[in-house]
Amino acid sequence: MVTRENLDSVLKHRVGLKGPMATPIGKGHRSLNLTLRKELQLYANVRPCFSLPGYKTRYDDVNLITIRENTEGEYSGLEHEVIPGVVESLKVITRNASTRVAEYAFKYARDNGRKKVSAIHKANIMKMADGLFIKCCREVHEKHPDIEYEELIVDNACMQLVKNPAQFDVLVMPNLYGDIISDLCAGLIGGLGLTPSGNIGANGLALMEAVHGTAPDIAGQDKANPTALLLSGVMMLRHLTLNEHADRIQSAVLGTIADGKYLTGDLGGRAKTSEFTKAIIDSME
Amino acid sequence: MVTRENLDSVLKHRVGLKGPMATPIGKGHRSLNLTLRKELQLYANVRPCFSLPGYKTRYDDVNLITIRENTEGEYSGLEHEVIPGVVESLKVITRNASTRVAEYAFKYARDNGRKKVSAIHKANIMKMADGLFIKCCREVHEKHPDIEYEELIVDNACMQLVKNPAQFDVLVMPNLYGDIISDLCAGLIGGLGLTPSGNIGANGLALMEAVHGTAPDIAGQDKANPTALLLSGVMMLRHLTLNEHADRIQSAVLGTIADGKYLTGDLGGRAKTSEFTKAIIDSME
Ligand SMILES: CC(C)[C@H](C(=O)O)[C@@H](O)C(=O)O
Ligand SMILES: CC(C)[C@H](C(=O)O)[C@@H](O)C(=O)O
Repeated sequence: MVTRENLDSVLKHRVGLKGPMATPIGKGHRSLNLTLRKELQLYANVRPCFSLPGYKTRYDDVNLITIRENTEGEYSGLEHEVIPGVVESLKVITRNASTRVAEYAFKYARDNGRKKVSAIHKANIMKMADGLFIKCCREVHEKHPDIEYEELIVDNACMQLVKNPAQFDVLVMPNLYGDIISDLCAGLIGGLGLTPSGNIGANGLALMEAVHGTAPDIAGQDKANPTALLLSGVMMLRHLTLNEHADRIQSAVLGTIADGKYLTGDLGGRAKTSEFTKAIIDSME
Repeated sequence: MVTRENLDSVLKHRVGLKGPMATPIGKGHRSLNLTLRKELQLYANVRPCFSLPGYKTRYDDVNLITIRENTEGEYSGLEHEVIPGVVESLKVITRNASTRVAEYAFKYARDNGRKKVSAIHKANIMKMADGLFIKCCREVHEKHPDIEYEELIVDNACMQLVKNPAQFDVLVMPNLYGDIISDLCAGLIGGLGLTPSGNIGANGLALMEAVHGTAPDIAGQDKANPTALLLSGVMMLRHLTLNEHADRIQSAVLGTIADGKYLTGDLGGRAKTSEFTKAIIDSME
């Protein structure tokens, strides 16, 4: 449950780190994650995704950031039955939210030494909705002419991502494409257990989170891989400009994975969560 | 341009094979491909996707079929500006179209010796729209209890597809997810130059097509890879139950690719289109 207290605490401290939460299934239950994103107006969802040295997948050259509009689009929650058997679902795209997330993407690129922003859309079909999104991205790009800019249709973007992810740098897109593409990218490097995530709101508010599920099947068994949460913590430290601390923890986590001696089961190892984290802590000392 | 004559011809002969078509860019131009799908009520888009022996990608174990609802969903074309800077786009899901495509998917699985149908959705967010789609899939599954059935949320499906595509068999989904996932899958095996496609309509009407672009940059240069179109022709022959002819052409195409001596530029070779096709024809003699 998300209490008023939780919300107030994040609002007061301007930063938070959360683990996965499960929403009870059934009508009337709104996703707790979505509640947080909406209540705190966390408009940009940032997911860095890079190949981990030592953890082998089919890809060893992924190094990209997906930036997802986090408040509207296909997540409006506006749906109705027109007549029995005919349902309409509303996708909402606004100039404000599109411009805001595009600005965040270009600023992120600039602040992090990234060279290119790719805007993902389906404006050949949703000419007005995705058309507006792309228009806003173009306008923001005009203010950042030194950052390379391109546009890709979402189907082609997914094909390019699996063929050659190394061509991408920063990607910015409406909500649902971001949901899909960030998971696709996580898959390239090994899954959601490895990818951190940050939700950025107005006035520097930020809530970092591991986006994988709660894995109730292994709860309490000292088996879960804490990497996504640890790297989300690293993102939080960077957000607070505690870069030295962030670097130190990040190298310890990546080093422990590269070392390969204490990997959790999902990574093909046999270490417990506590052994993996101890190895990380030891390597920092 | 799609003329009345074209449409009438396909309606009369009940089958067609088409190459890529470019739609002029700009407002008021409706995609020619979409016009055909809508005018001819081509309700299911079928895209087989399998690793080609001899053409190496990061994946060698892909063998799946995406079946995409082809008439509604995010492709309704219904959009409007509510107030300046706020656009709504309507996704329409109907019981009829969802049931029809689900039935096609299970029938396809049965007729082609496939074991499992996976329905892809985002019903945790679009509870009513994708909820209806999934409901219809479940109902159809009840009539085909011998075919395995599962449901995957679209973001997870994309992650699973890049991690381990071999777990999939037949996939069925609403229009936009089908657009995205069929391109993703094509990317796994090398791209749209290699994947055939069929659009299935009521009363056995079928229009096969290569779904790649028109590649105007290489037009008239005897360079294009005709594989997608040839394999679409093979699908057409199968549709006409000319299976022997289909098998013969398919093995010649796949054999020529596996042989590797006459590959077009996109496959890393230096053969002209005419040399590649001659090699295919020669191998059939
Ligand atoms: C759990 C779900 C509501 C959520 C989403 O769709 O945004 C998740 O997939 C994510 O990406 O954080
Ligand atoms: C060209 C475009 C309108 C089309 C689509 O979005 O369906 C294409 O991507 C496809 O998959 O056939």
